[in-house]
Amino acid sequence: MVAYQQIVSYIRSIGEIVIADVKRGDIGSTAGLYAKGHLSGDFEADVVTLSPYMGKDAISPYFDFFAKDKGAFVLAKTSNEGSKDFQDLIIDGQPLYMSVLQKLKEWSKEIPGNYKFSPLGAVVGVNELKDIKALKENSKDTYLLIPGYGAQGANIEDIRALIQENKNGVINVSRGYTAGINESDFRKVLSQRAQQLAKELSECIK
Amino acid sequence: MVAYQQIVSYIRSIGEIVIADVKRGDIGSTAGLYAKGHLSGDFEADVVTLSPYMGKDAISPYFDFFAKDKGAFVLAKTSNEGSKDFQDLIIDGQPLYMSVLQKLKEWSKEIPGNYKFSPLGAVVGVNELKDIKALKENSKDTYLLIPGYGAQGANIEDIRALIQENKNGVINVSRGYTAGINESDFRKVLSQRAQQLAKELSECIK
Repeated sequence: MVAYQQIVSYIRSIGEIVIADVKRGDIGSTAGLYAKGHLSGDFEADVVTLSPYMGKDAISPYFDFFAKDKGAFVLAKTSNEGSKDFQDLIIDGQPLYMSVLQKLKEWSKEIPGNYKFSPLGAVVGVNELKDIKALKENSKDTYLLIPGYGAQGANIEDIRALIQENKNGVINVSRGYTAGINESDFRKVLSQRAQQLAKELSECIK
Repeated sequence: MVAYQQIVSYIRSIGEIVIADVKRGDIGSTAGLYAKGHLSGDFEADVVTLSPYMGKDAISPYFDFFAKDKGAFVLAKTSNEGSKDFQDLIIDGQPLYMSVLQKLKEWSKEIPGNYKFSPLGAVVGVNELKDIKALKENSKDTYLLIPGYGAQGANIEDIRALIQENKNGVINVSRGYTAGINESDFRKVLSQRAQQLAKELSECIK
């Protein structure tokens, strides 16, 4: 917890945004306390990730923090193998994750303030996705957190198709960035990879 | 964290079971670390609650701990208002939460050991549920954690219909147990309520 606190404060101290990938999903007063714990105080991050499974009352307690420039990304279509188990199930002709995106849009209307993109964003992995067009249609007013580039095989062409126009995507690279580097040249290789990634990913919004 | 650690250790020291209602839902190595953190070491509980949204790879890392007498309850139908938003959506003629129960049954076959009831249980709130019979049919081999008795209006007749035969339910009472007691007679009222609840709930398995 001490290490986490130090990392979070350091990143914020250099003016960068911290996304706490905590995938919380609890209701009412509990969600309110999680919101407070993750978006203020000693462990203050700027954005959290949330699970939609329990519905609106697991998400709305975070709204109060949006007026303080905070945000949330709600899991819609994750990039792991198991995302097929429930997120891809077909409801009224479309996958469950599309229903999640539509609900986020509906709930966003209740957030006070005037935003071009809703502070209630969505996590959408594009690996193995067939219908980028429908996904884009359902997410044009929201920020997207896009995992899976690199190790999990998200295609740069798909990412471009999704965010090129609106420039509303945050692309996450984890294992593809840090994995398999020797301790002796960690800084050097990390720096090279960062430059390479910046070059590749900037293509998505050109 | 210190208070949590002390409460968990105390309950375990008197031989009672600790259910850590953490509603975790993350994948692979992260899920493995959450499993380790919640089911061993300083914060060791006996059972955790998990969110199914990310699918099997968010649940299976907990299986290793089942051989050490640990267990998990996966959220299927929760007792909050927002449970309707996604859990009740109809897929192939049945609500999503029924698909979750069926998947848990399928995954349970891969858990080593010989159990009458799977250590991979399910959270099922019975308030506002219409089809207790189908729910019972899909949960007869698993333990159920049943929230919502008291404040959220779960009906004792519904709970009885669900668990009387198999005696496979753990009934949770939170607000209905602790809310609205003056500090001066906290112990006394709590004790009275506990006796009353024990009487009411024992009716369910008679």
